Amino acid sequence: MREVAILGIGQVPVAEHWEKRLVELAGEAIFAALKDAEVNKVEALFVGNMMAGQLDKQTHLGALISDWVGFRGIEAMTVEAACGSGALALRSALVAVGSGLVSSALAVGVEKMTDTSPRETTSALATAASADWEGVHGITFVGLNALIMRRYMHEYGWKHEDFAPFSINAHANGVNNPNARFQSPITEEVYRKAVMVADPINLMDASPIGDGAAAAIVVPLDLVQGMSQKPIVKIAGSAVATDSIAVHDRHDPLWLSAAEKSAREAYRQADVGPDEIDVFEIHDAFSIMAALSLEACGFAERGQGPRLGLEGEIIPTGRIPIATMGGLKARGHPVGATGMYQVVEAVQQLRGEAGKAQIDGAEVALTQNIGGSGATVISHILTAD
Amino acid sequence: MREVAILGIGQVPVAEHWEKRLVELAGEAIFAALKDAEVNKVEALFVGNMMAGQLDKQTHLGALISDWVGFRGIEAMTVEAACGSGALALRSALVAVGSGLVSSALAVGVEKMTDTSPRETTSALATAASADWEGVHGITFVGLNALIMRRYMHEYGWKHEDFAPFSINAHANGVNNPNARFQSPITEEVYRKAVMVADPINLMDASPIGDGAAAAIVVPLDLVQGMSQKPIVKIAGSAVATDSIAVHDRHDPLWLSAAEKSAREAYRQADVGPDEIDVFEIHDAFSIMAALSLEACGFAERGQGPRLGLEGEIIPTGRIPIATMGGLKARGHPVGATGMYQVVEAVQQLRGEAGKAQIDGAEVALTQNIGGSGATVISHILTAD
Repeated sequence: MREVAILGIGQVPVAEHWEKRLVELAGEAIFAALKDAEVNKVEALFVGNMMAGQLDKQTHLGALISDWVGFRGIEAMTVEAACGSGALALRSALVAVGSGLVSSALAVGVEKMTDTSPRETTSALATAASADWEGVHGITFVGLNALIMRRYMHEYGWKHEDFAPFSINAHANGVNNPNARFQSPITEEVYRKAVMVADPINLMDASPIGDGAAAAIVVPLDLVQGMSQKPIVKIAGSAVATDSIAVHDRHDPLWLSAAEKSAREAYRQADVGPDEIDVFEIHDAFSIMAALSLEACGFAERGQGPRLGLEGEIIPTGRIPIATMGGLKARGHPVGATGMYQVVEAVQQLRGEAGKAQIDGAEVALTQNIGGSGATVISHILTAD
Repeated sequence: MREVAILGIGQVPVAEHWEKRLVELAGEAIFAALKDAEVNKVEALFVGNMMAGQLDKQTHLGALISDWVGFRGIEAMTVEAACGSGALALRSALVAVGSGLVSSALAVGVEKMTDTSPRETTSALATAASADWEGVHGITFVGLNALIMRRYMHEYGWKHEDFAPFSINAHANGVNNPNARFQSPITEEVYRKAVMVADPINLMDASPIGDGAAAAIVVPLDLVQGMSQKPIVKIAGSAVATDSIAVHDRHDPLWLSAAEKSAREAYRQADVGPDEIDVFEIHDAFSIMAALSLEACGFAERGQGPRLGLEGEIIPTGRIPIATMGGLKARGHPVGATGMYQVVEAVQQLRGEAGKAQIDGAEVALTQNIGGSGATVISHILTAD
């Protein structure tokens, strides 16, 4: 495969966009990416989305969105792996361009979750888990993560407040991101006193849903080298790995083997290791997922993820800054769009365009998007070329 | 991209599989394909599915199915473009292998539609159309096709009975396919007297839904040349094109421009034309779609699709045999699986393994899978190598 670069990015603020349809959100992110890339057409469109069929009564988003943005006729499709759908769009665009099939592709993640009742949205989210072995018992998605977190606390001796730094860091960083759903800092007291959702996960351990869309335009690297006015961002590593969809069926429910596998493969492709990562856009859907992801990607020993937070290593000036634009916790988690928000934010950091959220000297970024409670994990390594 | 071949195929009969879960159907097709290919592992899995989220309360099929069949860990994802989802799985597997990303990939189409009420299933099908401009009015999918058929009859002067040959041919061919949902022939009288569904579409113009799964294993062509005991089937052409999702918004609602575009590109890649096609697995979801697809692919002049049926050209001994294993009309239309059934059936024909349905001397096959009422069309040309 030939080398591939990200030429343009676009996003809409994560919010409750009651006045806009799903296709309009996707369109806004795409138009912004086209403007940023200074192009007006691409040859293929990949849409990351999980729930439009259930919540918007609309499947077939590839044709819908490509027509809406003026690309009628091009190849287009939806790709889905629950909450990992977004990064799959980038992955698919990368393979389409890298293979030589097309010379430009657009990846967009989009989700509209706030027009339906909480019951409907919660039910739709639960379809990411095993319907036969998990959903059938009525367990929600946060409930599943609560089981994992409780076991993790028991096994490794962590207290609930040890997870506070994940949430505090995400909210502190969200303040600097105009596209974040929550742009207000929280204190440790706010974290401790937050209402319980599914013990031990309280409101400050859980990312908020939202409506959103984020997009990136992918082109061959050699096409833009020496041409683009903007710093070039290369996709240096890309990998997808899976695990059992049902938590009880994993070899170790406290280890994200798909995260480890996909990160390791992405590192290999990019020829880097955890020490060289300057920015890590992490899938902190729940604070326990942040801890497990840090461990799987080689930043902490098994069972020691929370230590990184407690020792100040995850903040912007720390050893491995995570959730630098707010993460899922503060930027928000519009499910099928999340993976693309992570990519767009990593590009902002690598270009030096992250504003007040800028991590000094960021040259290598890792993004990791997790589907379900760890069953599909997509890791990308982006570098400033 | 390197050249790619189909090494193994598998399918389950299209039926009301109330006793089997979706993952079991997919698994049966996959195990059959693995056995046929004489391999026990692949490196990536692409699942074509449209409605599992809505009807089975299950998204995230990539991880679910790959784990079920013993491939835990591999790259896996769902691809979707409504009724065109199946062929997108083959397309994605082709690109993954063709690009050099992996050396083997499995494409499976699966759908389970008969465990839910007709109202639920009909609503889920309607999400293939534009929710904002079509679904909002309460129009069903058959209703949309009825509007197209009525206009076509008006514009080109066809009577309803002129479409009878499509249905009669499909049912006659389904008799010879043990996996077909309907294995009984119909007469012209049965066609004429069938109950009206949405005027002018009667029950014999409309394909039946069903539960089903079909799979194919894709590998580099040079890997199997000289090795495989079975005749080798090459994917000589593959293309996806889109159109407006809403019928009223098309330049010409009686012309499938996406079908024309994708077929033309597939012909170009394979360096063949309509005259060289021996078998055409057509997307006869409704008889009007068979007519329009024949025209768009260059087998009939605009508005003259029904003539091919009336002149006996579409039967197994005709100029362009279509729906040779029963088509959507008699084999059945388990939506997200349909595109893969078409591919599997074309491979059976090219290998000379189609039994009583065998088309003598079949060397070049065209499969065309249509999403929605023509908004996403995937064309593949398969050849006996």
